[in-house]
Amino acid sequence: MTLPYDNRLHTLDNGLRIATEHLQGARSVSFGIWIEAGSVHEAPGQEGMAHLWEHLAFKGTKRRSALDIAKSLDLLGGYSNAYTSREHTCFHARVVDTHLDEAMDILADIVLSPRPSADDLARETDVVLQEIAMVEEDPEDCLMEAFWREIWPQSSLGHSILGMPETVRSFDLSGLESWRTAHYRPGSILVSAAGHVHHEAFQGMVERHFGSLPEGSPLSAPPLGRYTPAVLMRERDTEQTHVGISFPGLGATDERRFAMGMLNAVLGGNMSSRLFQEIRERRGLAYTVYSFANAMSGQGVQQIYAAVDPERTGELLDCLRQELAKLASGGVTPEELEHARDHLLSVLYLTLESSEDRMSRLARNQLLLGRFVPPEETASRFEEVTLDEVRALAAEILDPARAGLAVMGPTVDPGWAGTFRP
Amino acid sequence: MTLPYDNRLHTLDNGLRIATEHLQGARSVSFGIWIEAGSVHEAPGQEGMAHLWEHLAFKGTKRRSALDIAKSLDLLGGYSNAYTSREHTCFHARVVDTHLDEAMDILADIVLSPRPSADDLARETDVVLQEIAMVEEDPEDCLMEAFWREIWPQSSLGHSILGMPETVRSFDLSGLESWRTAHYRPGSILVSAAGHVHHEAFQGMVERHFGSLPEGSPLSAPPLGRYTPAVLMRERDTEQTHVGISFPGLGATDERRFAMGMLNAVLGGNMSSRLFQEIRERRGLAYTVYSFANAMSGQGVQQIYAAVDPERTGELLDCLRQELAKLASGGVTPEELEHARDHLLSVLYLTLESSEDRMSRLARNQLLLGRFVPPEETASRFEEVTLDEVRALAAEILDPARAGLAVMGPTVDPGWAGTFRP
Repeated sequence: MTLPYDNRLHTLDNGLRIATEHLQGARSVSFGIWIEAGSVHEAPGQEGMAHLWEHLAFKGTKRRSALDIAKSLDLLGGYSNAYTSREHTCFHARVVDTHLDEAMDILADIVLSPRPSADDLARETDVVLQEIAMVEEDPEDCLMEAFWREIWPQSSLGHSILGMPETVRSFDLSGLESWRTAHYRPGSILVSAAGHVHHEAFQGMVERHFGSLPEGSPLSAPPLGRYTPAVLMRERDTEQTHVGISFPGLGATDERRFAMGMLNAVLGGNMSSRLFQEIRERRGLAYTVYSFANAMSGQGVQQIYAAVDPERTGELLDCLRQELAKLASGGVTPEELEHARDHLLSVLYLTLESSEDRMSRLARNQLLLGRFVPPEETASRFEEVTLDEVRALAAEILDPARAGLAVMGPTVDPGWAGTFRP
Repeated sequence: MTLPYDNRLHTLDNGLRIATEHLQGARSVSFGIWIEAGSVHEAPGQEGMAHLWEHLAFKGTKRRSALDIAKSLDLLGGYSNAYTSREHTCFHARVVDTHLDEAMDILADIVLSPRPSADDLARETDVVLQEIAMVEEDPEDCLMEAFWREIWPQSSLGHSILGMPETVRSFDLSGLESWRTAHYRPGSILVSAAGHVHHEAFQGMVERHFGSLPEGSPLSAPPLGRYTPAVLMRERDTEQTHVGISFPGLGATDERRFAMGMLNAVLGGNMSSRLFQEIRERRGLAYTVYSFANAMSGQGVQQIYAAVDPERTGELLDCLRQELAKLASGGVTPEELEHARDHLLSVLYLTLESSEDRMSRLARNQLLLGRFVPPEETASRFEEVTLDEVRALAAEILDPARAGLAVMGPTVDPGWAGTFRP
């Protein structure tokens, strides 16, 4: 399947990048303002600042109150939002083309000129504390978050994106403003759009809003720390026992990422994967079991999650150990390789139809690789992956000596800690 | 915004309905097999059968093993799934047009000819028990599910879609098969498709798979019971206190449903709603607070959910009571009405671009209203809603005498039960 694409990149004098992709047949436009400022850009004591700014941005600007902002965004259909990840903050919207001007006017305003008051800060701190409590409440989120902290101990990568209650409570407006000024610089910002968008008009629109920002280079993140094969055991009165497993993964620019995608698909990335078939289908051990490759710019992690009837935790861990050992020593079969390839190509083709997915793809490729990547190139990289590459990767990545393990449930057996010890 | 649409309805001799909508510019097709068999079609002792069949369908047929099914669906991109609601079961997929034949062949096969073994049943029972434990684990889901049971006591509408552990454990294959045969009848099935689909070809395809099903009329659901303003207080060691409020709502075919949509938008349906602004923005009381109108074919319910710092539960309840009383007695302002209208129209226009949303809209309108509803008609119904209609509805729906309340948190105060008592 070939879809038409027509893309453009432009860099303003102050360093801000603009990437557009015109999609035929679309009546909506998706656009995003991407700032390379996420939780990894927070030094000790600043944990949670990037995320809090994502909230504070909506509290008002010189020209708009919080209610004005909420109302205007609702009018555009409520398809606008923002999120904070480890490596960036993104403000984005999908709108009917005739609303593009207005939507950009609002999002640019809240990104560039937020003016929270001390009262806004106090209230929004309470909101974020509730959000932290919500993660704490959910056993899966709570375990995987605590596990992440253990995997990257004492590093800017390890702490929670939401921050800790004590850091979030400690922020004042001037400290927050210094952090924002240091990180929201034109050299760290990319504005991308996909859909029914005209390159020149969009470029002009972005330039009007962002062109007068004084030039500024991106600040680099503090050192990220190194993957640690941590073991975390926590007793908590939960209905199910929750299990996480980790291995060091690949960074997002690693040439072997296509082979990694296929290895993950065979391991636990879809319904025909080994873990889904063995754990859910053959044994009925879990409703939820999956694996995912988390790739950041410099490094990555391969994780597995499952939830199980507490009495069958030992059986689940045995089963996981066996499946991982089988894959590490035997690699994947030619049939599995073909299947994973076809699966990933289908996913690729179907996401190409959504203007939101295209807008994200456009931005991510620019931010990580500094260039536009035609979908055909991605497809042929998947085509080229060989059985040997996936075998070598399985042996390297799924090394039991580097496995981390996290278990949370009503009872935990210290003996489980040795499950993956070679 | 006018989007082109081109739709067709055809009924096979055996009563099965086929609805298609061709969307220009799409390369994918979304289709769904909708069976009017959901949890309301379960008599006492059968609770969970509809949902269990949604699972068992994937366990294998005469022609395919569970692994064959999982593999084939993965190859199609993993955009296929199934779900069970109170009133129907739906098996659906979004695929590239060249995969439509194959995808329909699989989904029709698993809907019409599932052949689970006793072992499959035992394993899938375990999987569903884990799924029930997962709901129990999540305080929001757990509270709202328990609340729902209290609102519709002793009725086919009140029980959980997943069933209870004791009913799910009690099923045998012959009982399950009788239930399926009684409810999966051509007169209760509708197959819908939207996207790059050709009416005649699709109709022929559906006829090949479903045409030989012997004629059969839909079975009507057991009596649904009546809305009850229940009060539920539950102590549980949670981080936040979870609060649910209910009022009797409108059925999905009620002529006032457009006014209801606007009332809900003003109440808690979006970011500029009264509850979001007052509770989250002005007071920082909750990260999550929203309202939603749940409309079933015969009746409906209007609900509110919020999670709060346990120490501020009383403050939250006071605030909710005041906001509800204000809306019930004063109605909405002209500005709020305009705003809600524009919001709902934007949402309508943006969902019209997705083939999945179009396919669902097509099916729901056929199932509930028995006809195709042009988007322009929906838009003008929203245009026509008056301030007086919304005022009258607010006074009727938000009547404190009919308010239900559910609270779950580390401590509960029996005095809260009287919050909405007039």
